[in-house]
Amino acid sequence: MTGMDIKALDADCPFAKYREMFDLPDGVIYLDGNSLGPPPRRALERLRDASRKEWGQDLIQSWNTAGWMDLPLTVGDKIAPLIGVDQGEVVCIDGVTTNIFKLAAALLVQHDSHHLVVEEGDFPTDGYVLEGLARLTGAKLSFVPRNTEPEDLPEGAAVFVKSGVHFKTAEITDVALYERQARDRNLDIIWDLSHATGLVDLHLKSDGARYAVGCGYKFLNGGPGTPGFIYVHSDFIDGLNQPVSGWMGHAAPFEFKDGYRPDPGIRRFAASTPHILSMASLDGALDVYADVDLKAGEDKARLMGDIFLQAAHDLGLETISPGIGERRGGHVCIRHPDGYAIVQALIAQGVIGDFRAPDLMRFGFSPLYLSFAEVEKAAAMMVDIIQSESFQRPEFQAVKSVT
Amino acid sequence: MTGMDIKALDADCPFAKYREMFDLPDGVIYLDGNSLGPPPRRALERLRDASRKEWGQDLIQSWNTAGWMDLPLTVGDKIAPLIGVDQGEVVCIDGVTTNIFKLAAALLVQHDSHHLVVEEGDFPTDGYVLEGLARLTGAKLSFVPRNTEPEDLPEGAAVFVKSGVHFKTAEITDVALYERQARDRNLDIIWDLSHATGLVDLHLKSDGARYAVGCGYKFLNGGPGTPGFIYVHSDFIDGLNQPVSGWMGHAAPFEFKDGYRPDPGIRRFAASTPHILSMASLDGALDVYADVDLKAGEDKARLMGDIFLQAAHDLGLETISPGIGERRGGHVCIRHPDGYAIVQALIAQGVIGDFRAPDLMRFGFSPLYLSFAEVEKAAAMMVDIIQSESFQRPEFQAVKSVT
Repeated sequence: MTGMDIKALDADCPFAKYREMFDLPDGVIYLDGNSLGPPPRRALERLRDASRKEWGQDLIQSWNTAGWMDLPLTVGDKIAPLIGVDQGEVVCIDGVTTNIFKLAAALLVQHDSHHLVVEEGDFPTDGYVLEGLARLTGAKLSFVPRNTEPEDLPEGAAVFVKSGVHFKTAEITDVALYERQARDRNLDIIWDLSHATGLVDLHLKSDGARYAVGCGYKFLNGGPGTPGFIYVHSDFIDGLNQPVSGWMGHAAPFEFKDGYRPDPGIRRFAASTPHILSMASLDGALDVYADVDLKAGEDKARLMGDIFLQAAHDLGLETISPGIGERRGGHVCIRHPDGYAIVQALIAQGVIGDFRAPDLMRFGFSPLYLSFAEVEKAAAMMVDIIQSESFQRPEFQAVKSVT
Repeated sequence: MTGMDIKALDADCPFAKYREMFDLPDGVIYLDGNSLGPPPRRALERLRDASRKEWGQDLIQSWNTAGWMDLPLTVGDKIAPLIGVDQGEVVCIDGVTTNIFKLAAALLVQHDSHHLVVEEGDFPTDGYVLEGLARLTGAKLSFVPRNTEPEDLPEGAAVFVKSGVHFKTAEITDVALYERQARDRNLDIIWDLSHATGLVDLHLKSDGARYAVGCGYKFLNGGPGTPGFIYVHSDFIDGLNQPVSGWMGHAAPFEFKDGYRPDPGIRRFAASTPHILSMASLDGALDVYADVDLKAGEDKARLMGDIFLQAAHDLGLETISPGIGERRGGHVCIRHPDGYAIVQALIAQGVIGDFRAPDLMRFGFSPLYLSFAEVEKAAAMMVDIIQSESFQRPEFQAVKSVT
């Protein structure tokens, strides 16, 4: 056991007020907010207003009267403080994959060396989409071993995509260190903040980061497949020309004139018409984050993760996350050959985590709606299931789950 | 006047039952469904279920239990019959601009001649995004005059993007003619069906069309910025590699392995996680279309457009759409130097149309929720406003409107 005073931790927890902002189903302990956050009540209200009032009653006029035209920017401005950047540097649009493509393509053409780099075993879509960009442009793509620092990247490396928090191990990358090394060798880093945003206390700008993408449906709780975002440091927006140059990124979209001129600001990364309904849900969800202390949130998540790591250690199981007391993202991964069956047994009892083939049980800890008591109870249930071997071994259906 | 028997037309109209499927605001005659369709009740219900039940109650499990993983395909299969293609040939994903990029890039690399073509004055985003693709790849981009047929395109033309219905004139392009000419010269045409889908009686496959993109938020009524779609004829999917190759288009996304392998089917055009909430709204909206007779719908829209054209002619105004009795898309454009002021005066009286700079009033006619009596009333109001000059001339705000 951890030796934590669970009751005292819950009694002193500054996040108690956030729990009421969510409406989780009875009997569920939700440890998968790192994959799909649950709906804040405010997100559902905002979605109802956007659909029934703005769309249903005000119709086309809502592009002006309800602020739909600027929604990618106003939502971006709500995300900006959560990653430590300024207003006007973030646009909410598309998804992580598409956003990596646009940003990497725009950066690639600024370099003499057309050489893309990604890490082996980083979230696969990051590599997949760089493969696509390389295939289209003739650029070179290199995969490098885990945690290769910029100074050790192959010669000629121009654009490096790297997760801020690893989707399996939850390791946090030292952004400032990487950026210092990147400056020494004319390297641009695109940070994939999918598993970091809303959980890790990020300070992108003061750490020297210039480019990032991220996701709205994990710790930000914006809803399934809600659009992601792009951050570009204001000093580097001008001259950055992304190739999916659509009318919503044009300087004057309603002149309807042939000939593309990018918007002077971050809006140039918009392409198609923004997905207003999905984005409205994220807009509402972000209101919950208006006054969240991210440092305290990261600390709470780490303590909750420690409870699971301790339970795993007590069982003699291997874990692949940074250890007890160490800084990490909002989830932990525990290895067990029957991991899939154990996760299914937990789900049947209301504890929802997920599984990553071949043998990783993954549990995520949002500080906003989870109590220490719930996490301790869930860990005890996991221990009980494993010790009593009270699980069936169903066939693993790899294609039927989602991160 | 048109000489139409308005009462008889409404009495005999086979679309009366659809009116009840919408809940339009009182006092509004909505002539902008070509820009943003109003919500079918079913779309709002589906959105509520997707957000409150599927997301809120079933959480992450809805990727499997609610069919979210396959939603881009199931929605695509609902769109397929509306454009005259087969099941498994359409995927609902992203927006028109992004989809043109993916499709044009995938086709471009199959040609020895890297030459893209688009029409002057076609919907601008089509040209904007081809500019972006050309800039990135070094391909050539040519703009050709309106209605240049494939046989008259410049030598070496490889990929041609062309609207099925023109966003200003509502002219319908002869798909079969264009495709026959395209076959003679190894040209691939990407049809932009934004202003056609759900209104024009399309038969893409029998007309020989191989590639198309389209929009869900105009006549399909899927909601603001709902995802669009891509169609590829089943004979041509294999070997077509789009560059925004993300995990949702991978053959086995949940193996989480480096190395992209495209899904064998149309799903390969998916990239990021689909925008489920926006897509659920479209999914519901498409239920309305399950048994719509598109030929009858196109005919009804043409008759309604005729009422407006006749009113314009009676006033001596120029129109730029195909004339009375001629086949056209679901809208008409009428030229007037005070067009913006007239449209604003109409909106103030509950008749919602739109305006395209510098002098085009545009009115769209969905057969599903409009009666002939409403359209006749709206036309009479336009005539009255113009004849009495009962409009103020506000300053036109070009950037504050949307198609």
